[in-house]
Amino acid sequence: MIASFYEGNHTFSVSEKSIVAPSKGEVQIKVAYCGVCGTDVHIYHGSMDKRVQIPVTIGHEMSGTISAIGEEVTGFSVGEKVVVRPLDDRGEKSSDKGYSHICKDLKFIGIDSPGAMQQYWNVPAFTLHKLSVETDLKLAALVEPLSVACHDVRLSELKAGEVAVVLGGGPIGLLVAMVAKSKGARVIISEVNSVRLALAKEIGFEVVNPVETDVVEFIEKETDGRLADVVFEVAGVQPTVDLMTNIAGLRGRIVMVAIHGQPKNVNLFQFFWKELKLIGARVYEREDYDEAIGLVTANQMPFDKMITKVEPLSNIQTVFENIDENPDGMKVLLDCQV
Amino acid sequence: MIASFYEGNHTFSVSEKSIVAPSKGEVQIKVAYCGVCGTDVHIYHGSMDKRVQIPVTIGHEMSGTISAIGEEVTGFSVGEKVVVRPLDDRGEKSSDKGYSHICKDLKFIGIDSPGAMQQYWNVPAFTLHKLSVETDLKLAALVEPLSVACHDVRLSELKAGEVAVVLGGGPIGLLVAMVAKSKGARVIISEVNSVRLALAKEIGFEVVNPVETDVVEFIEKETDGRLADVVFEVAGVQPTVDLMTNIAGLRGRIVMVAIHGQPKNVNLFQFFWKELKLIGARVYEREDYDEAIGLVTANQMPFDKMITKVEPLSNIQTVFENIDENPDGMKVLLDCQV
Repeated sequence: MIASFYEGNHTFSVSEKSIVAPSKGEVQIKVAYCGVCGTDVHIYHGSMDKRVQIPVTIGHEMSGTISAIGEEVTGFSVGEKVVVRPLDDRGEKSSDKGYSHICKDLKFIGIDSPGAMQQYWNVPAFTLHKLSVETDLKLAALVEPLSVACHDVRLSELKAGEVAVVLGGGPIGLLVAMVAKSKGARVIISEVNSVRLALAKEIGFEVVNPVETDVVEFIEKETDGRLADVVFEVAGVQPTVDLMTNIAGLRGRIVMVAIHGQPKNVNLFQFFWKELKLIGARVYEREDYDEAIGLVTANQMPFDKMITKVEPLSNIQTVFENIDENPDGMKVLLDCQV
Repeated sequence: MIASFYEGNHTFSVSEKSIVAPSKGEVQIKVAYCGVCGTDVHIYHGSMDKRVQIPVTIGHEMSGTISAIGEEVTGFSVGEKVVVRPLDDRGEKSSDKGYSHICKDLKFIGIDSPGAMQQYWNVPAFTLHKLSVETDLKLAALVEPLSVACHDVRLSELKAGEVAVVLGGGPIGLLVAMVAKSKGARVIISEVNSVRLALAKEIGFEVVNPVETDVVEFIEKETDGRLADVVFEVAGVQPTVDLMTNIAGLRGRIVMVAIHGQPKNVNLFQFFWKELKLIGARVYEREDYDEAIGLVTANQMPFDKMITKVEPLSNIQTVFENIDENPDGMKVLLDCQV
């Protein structure tokens, strides 16, 4: 089989490797597709060289088919379509209070241990979620990021008829918007990139460009002064942190989806004055995967528009280089079958 | 009767004034005691000169007895002991979504309209909460700030057995700590002022002084790594904003009680990483008053220790001057009966 390896220094290698049988408790997956996540791009940039063990096979937004089953694994059959919830929570302690998905010693599979950007991948059986026979494996590679969106929306307690504003129209922002819409909310996306804005509009969302429009005035007008019930901060920059408190109405909930590497200036007075809530949201729980799989299976949303390109695994180096050059794109999938 | 007036320029006057009969829908209260709130001190400092209409009688932490009843008021009798919930929400609109206590056009009685630092005070009947005959009117003057604490603790969803850390051991901090304790939580108070620390300790709280002790290490050790379930940020300074995210454990709730005049640097990464929640809390709702009155009536907590001094209304100027000189004190009450 072939496998890709991040080698440090903005470099991936692709080489032949022998297929390893799954260990006890593991399942071997013939990987179909693996999407490129923002975190993978961070790794490629060298920003996580201290965390990853170079050379390392990365990738966690995948779909595939079971190709072999290790000892003591029950409930799975060769040929079944699956996705992996890449959270290894075996280090969970009682001080984690049952929040296994964010436990202190959580290992993220595909970062802290080998990932899916290879043809065959062995993972602990407890990470698997089954897909139905007819599931499109390209769309199924979106289950992992879509689960992030399901988690974000679930924690927001968004209700039908409420107004949700998504700050940032990248891949996660669009998926959050889709899930929010599936709850019956009115969804407005704020984004500065005109190509991303056009895509958001094309797939049916109301959009606003903060470069051209005063977003606070816009939201105020659109909501007759109620402002947003829920805000998703997905952009991770100071201007959206400023916006989030200004566009949230009384008792508004702001979900912190973005990863802020540096502390930001936050208008805490607005939290007090409007009794706002800031809700941190990280990865997903089992039920979010179930919901995401249900949404992909139903295929009632324009998930296909999320897939900008599908490239063979062997092109991984070019794929990462192109992502850097083209900030307009959504998801690029690596096809690991060819 | 006598009434006090804030005249601007760090000055209160006290003068004779004729008693005015209550208008339609109003009740006249013979004020017993009126506590000095931090907001009253801000007014004295001139920080709210743009908001108040000088000369103005301020004060809202009061207790008293009904002395006259206006037309169209039912359900009240002369002689009944009462406190006032000083929120005039008559400007509430549908865009306020039913959150009348923080509605956009809320008028705060005692700031936006005359307050209780006088002998007789006319207020809308809908602001009244009745007290039982045996209620101590000195302690009843604590109902308003205690309601703030009840609101803060209620919004935190604090449960028995959880660990709550209160950042700031001033009057509101101590009251929050007392209410938190009444829920069966373990309560730790962090405070830099040694006199306030000593009082907190005297009335039975665990305390920590961030000047002497690394609070994060302390909380980590005391909780076997779980960290705090709930943090109340009552101090309103950058060091406690830094602390709040560091001492909160997984899915910890941080209640923003303090009024931050300026944006602060907030570690948003921690919100994401530990799925923290920041909950803004402002004033109180009807049920918080009911709970506070219940607590004062039961009198099972060291509320009396909260009252540093009782001074005649006529001494108001000296009272405010002394508060500035003595940052150790808790509540000073003005006795409006003498």
